[in-house]
Amino acid sequence: MADVCAADRHALTPVPQWHNPAEGVWKGVIGDMSGEIRYTDLAAERPREEAIEELPDAAFPFRADEIVYQVVDNRIVVRIPVASDEKLYGFGLQFDGLRKTGEVLNLNVDHWGTGGGRTHAPVPFYLSSRGYGVFFNTARFLKVYSAIGNRKGSPGNPTPVDRNPPAGEEQPGRWMARPASDAVEACVISQGLELFVFSGPSMLDVVRRYNLYCGGGALPPLWGLGFWHRVHAAFDAQQTEREVADFAARDFPLDVIGLEPGWMSKSYPCTFEWQKKRFADPAAFAQGLLEKGIRLNLWVNPYMSPEAGLYEKMYPLSGSHLVWLGLVPDFTLPEARRLLMDQHYEEHVRIGVSGYKVDEVDGYDVWLWPDHATFPSGTSAEIMRQSYGLQIQHMLYHELFKKHNRRTYGNVRASNGAASGYPFVIYSDAYNHTQYITGISTASLCGVLWTPEVRSAGNGREWLNRMQTVCFSSMAKLNAWSSGRKPWDFPEVSDAVRGVIQLRMQLLPYLYAAFADYHFKGIPPIRAMILEPGAGLRDKVIDGALDGEANPYATDKLVEATDQFMFGPSIMVAPFHGQQATTRKVQLPPGAWYDFYSGRYVGSDTVVTVTAEELGDRIALFVRGGSLIPMLAHPVNTTEAAYGADLELRYYGSGEASFDLYEDDGKTFDYETGNYRIRRLTVAEGVLTESLVKGDGPAMWGQATLRKMSE
Amino acid sequence: MADVCAADRHALTPVPQWHNPAEGVWKGVIGDMSGEIRYTDLAAERPREEAIEELPDAAFPFRADEIVYQVVDNRIVVRIPVASDEKLYGFGLQFDGLRKTGEVLNLNVDHWGTGGGRTHAPVPFYLSSRGYGVFFNTARFLKVYSAIGNRKGSPGNPTPVDRNPPAGEEQPGRWMARPASDAVEACVISQGLELFVFSGPSMLDVVRRYNLYCGGGALPPLWGLGFWHRVHAAFDAQQTEREVADFAARDFPLDVIGLEPGWMSKSYPCTFEWQKKRFADPAAFAQGLLEKGIRLNLWVNPYMSPEAGLYEKMYPLSGSHLVWLGLVPDFTLPEARRLLMDQHYEEHVRIGVSGYKVDEVDGYDVWLWPDHATFPSGTSAEIMRQSYGLQIQHMLYHELFKKHNRRTYGNVRASNGAASGYPFVIYSDAYNHTQYITGISTASLCGVLWTPEVRSAGNGREWLNRMQTVCFSSMAKLNAWSSGRKPWDFPEVSDAVRGVIQLRMQLLPYLYAAFADYHFKGIPPIRAMILEPGAGLRDKVIDGALDGEANPYATDKLVEATDQFMFGPSIMVAPFHGQQATTRKVQLPPGAWYDFYSGRYVGSDTVVTVTAEELGDRIALFVRGGSLIPMLAHPVNTTEAAYGADLELRYYGSGEASFDLYEDDGKTFDYETGNYRIRRLTVAEGVLTESLVKGDGPAMWGQATLRKMSE
Repeated sequence: MADVCAADRHALTPVPQWHNPAEGVWKGVIGDMSGEIRYTDLAAERPREEAIEELPDAAFPFRADEIVYQVVDNRIVVRIPVASDEKLYGFGLQFDGLRKTGEVLNLNVDHWGTGGGRTHAPVPFYLSSRGYGVFFNTARFLKVYSAIGNRKGSPGNPTPVDRNPPAGEEQPGRWMARPASDAVEACVISQGLELFVFSGPSMLDVVRRYNLYCGGGALPPLWGLGFWHRVHAAFDAQQTEREVADFAARDFPLDVIGLEPGWMSKSYPCTFEWQKKRFADPAAFAQGLLEKGIRLNLWVNPYMSPEAGLYEKMYPLSGSHLVWLGLVPDFTLPEARRLLMDQHYEEHVRIGVSGYKVDEVDGYDVWLWPDHATFPSGTSAEIMRQSYGLQIQHMLYHELFKKHNRRTYGNVRASNGAASGYPFVIYSDAYNHTQYITGISTASLCGVLWTPEVRSAGNGREWLNRMQTVCFSSMAKLNAWSSGRKPWDFPEVSDAVRGVIQLRMQLLPYLYAAFADYHFKGIPPIRAMILEPGAGLRDKVIDGALDGEANPYATDKLVEATDQFMFGPSIMVAPFHGQQATTRKVQLPPGAWYDFYSGRYVGSDTVVTVTAEELGDRIALFVRGGSLIPMLAHPVNTTEAAYGADLELRYYGSGEASFDLYEDDGKTFDYETGNYRIRRLTVAEGVLTESLVKGDGPAMWGQATLRKMSE
Repeated sequence: MADVCAADRHALTPVPQWHNPAEGVWKGVIGDMSGEIRYTDLAAERPREEAIEELPDAAFPFRADEIVYQVVDNRIVVRIPVASDEKLYGFGLQFDGLRKTGEVLNLNVDHWGTGGGRTHAPVPFYLSSRGYGVFFNTARFLKVYSAIGNRKGSPGNPTPVDRNPPAGEEQPGRWMARPASDAVEACVISQGLELFVFSGPSMLDVVRRYNLYCGGGALPPLWGLGFWHRVHAAFDAQQTEREVADFAARDFPLDVIGLEPGWMSKSYPCTFEWQKKRFADPAAFAQGLLEKGIRLNLWVNPYMSPEAGLYEKMYPLSGSHLVWLGLVPDFTLPEARRLLMDQHYEEHVRIGVSGYKVDEVDGYDVWLWPDHATFPSGTSAEIMRQSYGLQIQHMLYHELFKKHNRRTYGNVRASNGAASGYPFVIYSDAYNHTQYITGISTASLCGVLWTPEVRSAGNGREWLNRMQTVCFSSMAKLNAWSSGRKPWDFPEVSDAVRGVIQLRMQLLPYLYAAFADYHFKGIPPIRAMILEPGAGLRDKVIDGALDGEANPYATDKLVEATDQFMFGPSIMVAPFHGQQATTRKVQLPPGAWYDFYSGRYVGSDTVVTVTAEELGDRIALFVRGGSLIPMLAHPVNTTEAAYGADLELRYYGSGEASFDLYEDDGKTFDYETGNYRIRRLTVAEGVLTESLVKGDGPAMWGQATLRKMSE
């Protein structure tokens, strides 16, 4: 008989020492991190310690010896207690729900599609309903058993229940397909693992602390918040210019036009050089757009064609494997970054390109290097996969845009931990509208931005619903690279589509202030309802009916509302989607809620039904009572035209209300040296007053006029 | 700048030495295998070297230095060349197709569902259209890049093609979403990796060599090939006896009745002890069934309840984690096996239980121990997961049944490499009929048995189609644990269902001989068309139309026929399924094919359409010309009744034909000491003659009468 005590060799040991690098932030290190990449190493900015100190105090949420680890079969295992009434949320941009209690997650960068934790941004960060968060700060594949997987002898295990008792036999409870466990256990195949605990006390405080520790949220240029359109991949300069002119002629807002791979001399793999047959004079083309107030964004993926001018130089600086037969640059090497950024500056940014859409840095496995690829820096393929999207964001942000004091806003298809400071918005090919709306909520829990971009639709109703959703996201974008669609393509909803884009433009002062709160205070500009104080959770247990063919384990589902969310400080959005294309239920949290359009009081702590008909084909928006919404008094078609425009200050409900309007140049990093201002708009007893809370920076908006929406 | 030559530290090196343990079988070992489990360590029987030597000669299919490896970031990587015209098949029981060229596979034991390689039997064995096979003989998670993932500088890489060329620009070819690579690259996180190369020359020879090296195929007891029925989980002895009586009363064949978890005093987790409120006298119950010729099979999963008598003793012999709150015994420990097998013998097998259905040894992750669990033997959780199904088959086969010279036949929900000798049939919860039929073909490439078991159906047509399929599989089983269905539940097809079960019973002599060929010669009794000489491949390229929403990479699909298969030496089966519920196309390979029922000539090397109507609601069966099909002259309702029955020898087509009829006691392992016989039936010029090729064993069947089916 073998040694039955061998299991003791792997005894669980408390994490050796907890450091306290910032208020309410604790760090533990297991093993040797010298060969690893920490996500925080790749953060856009340093921790915003002063802002962290302004958060409420909160203690370390565990006993000092309660978080334990062991080393097993190449794996470092961490065990973190979970109480029986605790709910866990997060683990990155996930499209299948907010709550992740009772799941096993493989947190690998990947397209979303198979679920199981793999996604574009599998951020290894979870939030607890008890008001703390845990972040695994190591760029490795992480496998997480989230309150599932019971350890033998653990006191928190439930009592077993006979699944098939004979008639009349009493049971200690209902048999559960997934008995709850009393811990999160996470394992990583690595020499080292660093983990953080962020305290609250509220879940929003946890998220803010995480975002602020990672450098604060991104502050996009104002133009980034306008409307985006990506033309068909085969378009040339003239076709693109005609499409831009079409927007103006049809009175549709447009701020950014995106070119797809056909702008390059070769793509898949890429040269990063202009295709002169389509764009004979790129500088004149970009300049011509800028003169109309339109920014140019370029599609790229990182995989370099043998036809690229940089190919010979990049060859030794790239990995052992190709992607789409192109080189995979090792961007941990400064020389690889310098080569590419110099070329990008010379050929793109210098002539006016505003940013990039960085495609295909996520996978699937078939569209990436293998896990066993090697890179000249010695960085492992796994670490590269988990951090490649971050590396590229870091490179573009610092070495191309910030270096030249120009803000950028763009897209990226993979991100990960500590990414809150990056002005890059994640997108996907998954294209399920309901899942895309869920992504809006989950993104807000993990410091990433997400756009439920529109590509096409089966009918006008779906088109309008998708357009409405995207206009209340981090990036209002139509990505028509394949469909060639234009916003007005479904005539029956064309006016309604224009209407929602115009509404987004009118909301620029409100939204830009929300992003300033993201940057300076860590508050996600668009966020899950579970982060709202008092909003609570809409739990529902769907009884898993036993079905030998379809559900042989009689699996229950815990369902949470994931199809409504907060947009800025006071607006709650409830898009129509999927089977609820023209009518849906909306959960109103406690507090008074008002209809955005009419100012009518709707309810408090209740469920209401809304219909597209009663809304006049507008999206359902609700405003928290006692709120001010600063809007442009009149729609504009570009953000350039918004500068200096007068404001209408909508006032909902009653009582004193105030709003801090953030203003800067909207284009540079001068705000970092204090070159911004904050106008505090206050309404008391029906009278609007203004004061400058900070007063050094440039004015952005004009005069504000109060509009009382409610009686 | 970092060290750009670091990649060279991981140079690719030829596998050090190829051993040649059997004719046409080569073994290579990389690193240190001392801490690993080899699948071949868990094979049912030793290699059948004499049978291997009877296969045609075939050389090592590579240059000696062509298979190379490297060690990268804890991973052992193996690279095996693939030619540009080569097609690769296999990688275990897969439900999504035979061909696996151009895919990345995670070969982890799991429920099937998410695909990507995870399945109940992710056998790390692939077959090449060039007539060789490669087997990775290490119980670890294996990630395989199957002719995808191009290595930089490799001469076999295709030329890149611009994906978005401007109009009129010539391209070197069509852009492909998955450019072919010139190798299989497989990686495993382990200290050691053992791999085998099996030569052909034909793909069937490769499979035979693999099966024979793994000990030959399983030879089930004759009763295992009869009809199986599993009653509802809540049934007691009386209800079960009534159900058995119902089969007889309605003239439906039945050989094995299966009890589901309710037979135990507690289940999920399990006691393995009788629930006396349902089964007051298990011995009398089992004996009563045996007297009617019916065998009893018991459902189990391995997870032990605190209420089990063995719990205290098993506690220190079990892993660190629980499954469904039950202990996970470490069956690498002889004491753990002895405890359980002694109990199983005393309480089950001694009183007449014939075998087990071993459930839930596969996963999903949520229904298994975590990857970081520990076991008292020191065996890693990963190795346990990859081999647990094999360990249990090994234990039951050797330490419970073979020890007492009784054959068994049963089910298991996870298996893996080197399993061909086990009389355990894999089943699933996936329940897609079309996928289940695909499983029949893929199982035959990797030495496992598979049953597309029937649970229920949406209508009579589906019921009949599924029943017909399952009657031409390794185990003809209705698993009504949840639905409570009986074979006659859809009256409109009740006679047709009885008909196909009776046909299976009549085919017992033919099918039992096919299993003897599996055992002695390694020929899968039921197998994929690609193993048939001359059958070739039915290739079809479905052009991947670009669709920005649904197929943004314009992915092509290579489609192969996976819905027809060979049953025994000469019968080709083409079930109705899915959208082809009553009409379908059938590909007839080269050679003359005859309708099984009428003997009518149908065609050669062509496609024909069959309909349920013209078949009189029977399943489409085709017989290769020049074949003999030995059948029972009359249907029987149990295999006990088949012993000594007279045979009808159907003769199809023309020319000389012969069939080796295998006979033994059908119940013991006495055949291992030569206690069997082979009757060769030969038809030449219309006259049947018989000879005894081997003559020591008992007779099984009676007199054979020739029936000429074709003109």
